[in-house]
Amino acid sequence: MIRFDIISANPAIVENVKTTGLIGRAAKKGYIEVNVHHLRDYAEGNYRQIDDVPYGGGAGMVLKPEPFFKCLDEILNERKYDDVINFSPQGKVLNQKMINDFTLKSNLILICGHYKGIDQRVIDKYATIDISLGDFVLSSGDIAAIAFIDAVSRLIPGVLGDGESAMTDSFQNDVIFDAPCYTRPDEYKGMKVPEVLLGGNHSEIKKWKEMKGIEKFLKSKNKNN
Amino acid sequence: MIRFDIISANPAIVENVKTTGLIGRAAKKGYIEVNVHHLRDYAEGNYRQIDDVPYGGGAGMVLKPEPFFKCLDEILNERKYDDVINFSPQGKVLNQKMINDFTLKSNLILICGHYKGIDQRVIDKYATIDISLGDFVLSSGDIAAIAFIDAVSRLIPGVLGDGESAMTDSFQNDVIFDAPCYTRPDEYKGMKVPEVLLGGNHSEIKKWKEMKGIEKFLKSKNKNN
Repeated sequence: MIRFDIISANPAIVENVKTTGLIGRAAKKGYIEVNVHHLRDYAEGNYRQIDDVPYGGGAGMVLKPEPFFKCLDEILNERKYDDVINFSPQGKVLNQKMINDFTLKSNLILICGHYKGIDQRVIDKYATIDISLGDFVLSSGDIAAIAFIDAVSRLIPGVLGDGESAMTDSFQNDVIFDAPCYTRPDEYKGMKVPEVLLGGNHSEIKKWKEMKGIEKFLKSKNKNN
Repeated sequence: MIRFDIISANPAIVENVKTTGLIGRAAKKGYIEVNVHHLRDYAEGNYRQIDDVPYGGGAGMVLKPEPFFKCLDEILNERKYDDVINFSPQGKVLNQKMINDFTLKSNLILICGHYKGIDQRVIDKYATIDISLGDFVLSSGDIAAIAFIDAVSRLIPGVLGDGESAMTDSFQNDVIFDAPCYTRPDEYKGMKVPEVLLGGNHSEIKKWKEMKGIEKFLKSKNKNN
């Protein structure tokens, strides 16, 4: 069982998703537990202010250190965590090897700032890893956290049914090779399923799938340049 | 106004998110419109079957071609679309330059398969671009679609308030440079805000921010190797 503790300034989306889709099913079956901590609950004063203007000027509000410190001290005091993850466009770019490694963890804290950011002292003191989904900017870390939890959860044995097991993901050297897939009907509006897949020659099918997987991979690499 | 048409086999998450967070706010203000098409509504028969076993064997169910063809023919008949996007781990890896370009579009269709995939004939016939969030596998394209819509929407002028304008994102050559940010108090639990930010020397502050942004970028690059 992996326990995820999400600290969020905008918890509406994660509160929804934690009971929905694959994440909801994994939680219901007891393979994961998703706890959402609302940053505002840890803020002081009548207005429970969680952000303030940045030092040095510039647009955007910055999430204040105190509510994070209070929340993190509280939950870190309750149990041992393997990692405190901060989602940031400058973090280490997420890949499947990292996802695989995270499936072996027990307790993870996910800090979700909204862009333009969190007071750096929170990151300096608590974060053990900065993760980025890629070279693009999201409005908040919550969406990155959802993608992360989904990607990790689907690898936990039992979360996906046998028939959809993630064990059949096609990887080589952390690169994803997957052949095109087809189902019935074998001909639809003039478009046919490749002949080889309709026959029963398993070694031919295997060869075809490998070749097509590599083709798709090379095509995607070319498109990126 | 950008119109997003999502075709989804598991629409619960996107149905939730379309009224929540930044995407919900952007839709409410009329900057975007998010329409969710439930694949099952386009399936035939008493059981409205949307998937079937793959030709050539292997684990996982494949989404059938007919419901996609029906749905896509219907909506493509109603208006002109700039792109039909398919989310796939082998697609072109999403980056901020692509996101910027998509803000200039008017109508976009987002095809969301669950992994293990969609009958390839759907992709071959309709998709104009395959997009991947990165080298990791999600349980369904819906989460990728949410990240995509969020990243595009936040750049539409007016979606973010002036004070949090995305115009201050720090980019150079599509690379994200952003300095650490700080807010009050200037000292908290012994941790101080860097001196330069507390002064009023704007050219010094600018220099510091640029240097720190580049430092953070280089640090993240090193972590990736």
